[in-house]
Amino acid sequence: MSGAARQASLEPPLEPFGLVRRLVAEGLGTALLLAVVIGSGIMGERLAGGNEAIALLGNTLATGAALVVLITIFGPLSGAHFNPAVTLAFLLRRELSVGAATAYVAAQLAGAVAGVFVAHAMFAEPILQVSARLRDGPAQAFSEFVATFGLLVTIFGALRFRSDVTPVAVGLYITAAYWFTASTSFANPAVTVARSLSDTFAGIAPNSAPAFIAAQLVAVPVAAALCGWLFRRP
Amino acid sequence: MSGAARQASLEPPLEPFGLVRRLVAEGLGTALLLAVVIGSGIMGERLAGGNEAIALLGNTLATGAALVVLITIFGPLSGAHFNPAVTLAFLLRRELSVGAATAYVAAQLAGAVAGVFVAHAMFAEPILQVSARLRDGPAQAFSEFVATFGLLVTIFGALRFRSDVTPVAVGLYITAAYWFTASTSFANPAVTVARSLSDTFAGIAPNSAPAFIAAQLVAVPVAAALCGWLFRRP
Amino acid sequence: MSGAARQASLEPPLEPFGLVRRLVAEGLGTALLLAVVIGSGIMGERLAGGNEAIALLGNTLATGAALVVLITIFGPLSGAHFNPAVTLAFLLRRELSVGAATAYVAAQLAGAVAGVFVAHAMFAEPILQVSARLRDGPAQAFSEFVATFGLLVTIFGALRFRSDVTPVAVGLYITAAYWFTASTSFANPAVTVARSLSDTFAGIAPNSAPAFIAAQLVAVPVAAALCGWLFRRP
Amino acid sequence: MSGAARQASLEPPLEPFGLVRRLVAEGLGTALLLAVVIGSGIMGERLAGGNEAIALLGNTLATGAALVVLITIFGPLSGAHFNPAVTLAFLLRRELSVGAATAYVAAQLAGAVAGVFVAHAMFAEPILQVSARLRDGPAQAFSEFVATFGLLVTIFGALRFRSDVTPVAVGLYITAAYWFTASTSFANPAVTVARSLSDTFAGIAPNSAPAFIAAQLVAVPVAAALCGWLFRRP
Repeated sequence: MSGAARQASLEPPLEPFGLVRRLVAEGLGTALLLAVVIGSGIMGERLAGGNEAIALLGNTLATGAALVVLITIFGPLSGAHFNPAVTLAFLLRRELSVGAATAYVAAQLAGAVAGVFVAHAMFAEPILQVSARLRDGPAQAFSEFVATFGLLVTIFGALRFRSDVTPVAVGLYITAAYWFTASTSFANPAVTVARSLSDTFAGIAPNSAPAFIAAQLVAVPVAAALCGWLFRRP
Repeated sequence: MSGAARQASLEPPLEPFGLVRRLVAEGLGTALLLAVVIGSGIMGERLAGGNEAIALLGNTLATGAALVVLITIFGPLSGAHFNPAVTLAFLLRRELSVGAATAYVAAQLAGAVAGVFVAHAMFAEPILQVSARLRDGPAQAFSEFVATFGLLVTIFGALRFRSDVTPVAVGLYITAAYWFTASTSFANPAVTVARSLSDTFAGIAPNSAPAFIAAQLVAVPVAAALCGWLFRRP
Repeated sequence: MSGAARQASLEPPLEPFGLVRRLVAEGLGTALLLAVVIGSGIMGERLAGGNEAIALLGNTLATGAALVVLITIFGPLSGAHFNPAVTLAFLLRRELSVGAATAYVAAQLAGAVAGVFVAHAMFAEPILQVSARLRDGPAQAFSEFVATFGLLVTIFGALRFRSDVTPVAVGLYITAAYWFTASTSFANPAVTVARSLSDTFAGIAPNSAPAFIAAQLVAVPVAAALCGWLFRRP
Repeated sequence: MSGAARQASLEPPLEPFGLVRRLVAEGLGTALLLAVVIGSGIMGERLAGGNEAIALLGNTLATGAALVVLITIFGPLSGAHFNPAVTLAFLLRRELSVGAATAYVAAQLAGAVAGVFVAHAMFAEPILQVSARLRDGPAQAFSEFVATFGLLVTIFGALRFRSDVTPVAVGLYITAAYWFTASTSFANPAVTVARSLSDTFAGIAPNSAPAFIAAQLVAVPVAAALCGWLFRRP
């Protein structure tokens, strides 16, 4: 695998960037991701005249496009996890230390909440909100399990065979997952926490969040074990 | 052609993965494909307020995006056929043994049905369904012939000249084919069987399925013969 | 420039394919292009419930995606012109003989008409139709001048600097041009003739066609001259 | 970094094109960009039946696609700034002289206005217009700060790690930014001036323009400083 290919991947970066810059990349990238998720949701809801499918089209287009960009520009710095489930998976694969993983998750959570605030400020919404949008029931939780499982298989498969296209693969996967899962695919505990702080299109009621996060975390060891076997070099 | 280019293709993989892992890749990939096709169809139908074009836009976006991802990550393992018509074409080109082809088709069928069940579970639909959506008549069958012919020309042309972009070429082809064929392009016997088990947007009545499958299979030798001549090295 | 990069381009192919196969590639590629343009227009119109913007979104998505695929798989064979205006531009640059150019245009016209018939057959429409959709006036003709000029600048710019992405550049250009020109960008005399034979969403009344074709052809020497100067090697 | 990768970037070009051709590239590229922004806005508004989200989808698709094309074909000539904010950022990085930067901005402004006139002519609108669309208030200005900041981080991050995909990164960033910022992301002083001359979907009232431009220019040193630190080689 060439250096150029590695650079764009979600793998630990080749160049020895220090932990401070890596954490800034995780925090800033997650903040921009949430600004996109929440902001495009508000824009869609405001303009779509009540047709939720049209709102979701705009939300999907923006999120998928932004993920490709953010993973391309921050991947070589920090791995561009933006997601505690992804960080946990790399920890299970022993590609990240416990200390670094903990710091990553803290940066992701702080960035995610900041991104929600930025979106609210851009759309002249109250900065502090709590979502009232219930997303309950076993079908929603199963959706989050499938969404997170698919995300991790995408990441590990792309890193294994075509790490240069990892940013595109993740962006396209989420584009599909917004539509094929009943929960519109949060697939990310930091995103789930942050979206509970927005009473807009992309929000989730705090009471619905724990089941989402549990389903996401259960998917991590399952996907990690399957990928470890399926993608092992012959 | 470089090894990297080959790896992402639908060609028999370079690395000697065993048959078990190749069949798991075919089955899991086809399952995820069907979960996307059925799931995004349900999501589109539920949200689009009766406008079928908007529902089809979401269905198209999700399916095209997922195909790029699935062929990228499973192509180097199994070839990422996910489709008995494609497997038959490789058999006709003598690039696959009869035994492997039979096992591939079995894995595709099992995966396709499992994927439909997963989609139903995510959307809290009854797991077992039979479609009532008639798709009959010679124009529909002709559409399936054209859809499958175009898919195979896309695959063999991309493998011949730019195998590194085969996943993107197939994803974009199906994106177009959902719209330019009157049948919305099933182009896949395993997909056709599985979609008969879903009484949702993407379903097909069991009585309509045989003509679809026949038209798909008729396209295989036609496309294989044309491509054998057209893309032959000078 | 590497051989791989050249192969995907619109340039005369490196491998010495004979004229027969090149003409089949031009004819088949143009036929598939028209099947997509007309077919996705019918699909959009039938499903969009009277909202023309939604119909155009489907038409755009299908056409742009198909162009990327068709130029990728037929470019290395014939250059993938599919367009007498493009063939004329290569003739003006002396990269094609008069005899080959004439045969190319004949294959494009025959393929385009055949593609319209295939679309009609797939959608159970009468095969032979004449469009009643007027697209008249100087603003429409000016739109076709701009559309064709932009297409040729895209092609020659991409071939000059990044010939490996020419298929994507052309597909994205037409995606934009369907929306930013008032005529929805025919930009192709063979396409214009063929679309006069379809009384559907993408049709054009025969009386409106000559001004479109004239504007397209006027753009060719203008774009060729500008690109000859702008992209000349320093 | 290879020459091929550099060629497609926004960096000063490797080949010694003279200033005249570079300015023509900036002017023509900016003109085509504005023709796309304004033209697709008019098309969307005319066809969407009052649903602004559908109009914005068409506007977004066209603008994002066109940006990829224009940066691909003009980037190796002039850097494909098309944007005084980008030119200012390169000036701050001392990668452009004051004289060249001034000429770039003049070419961008002239091209942008010409592009608006071309769009009006294509759609049979009065050539000279003044927008009446107010886009006022601190939330709109903050949106422009975020939009421009994100654009510059995208450009400098892509140039740093994957300059071959810079055109795609910028096109995808603007695709997202049309939806996630409340102002639909002008992010460009020349575009802002030119859009004040169109009383259509994409217009902005002249009285609203100064705050947009100020917010865009404030983002330049902030983004330049952050990127200078974040992307510095270890």
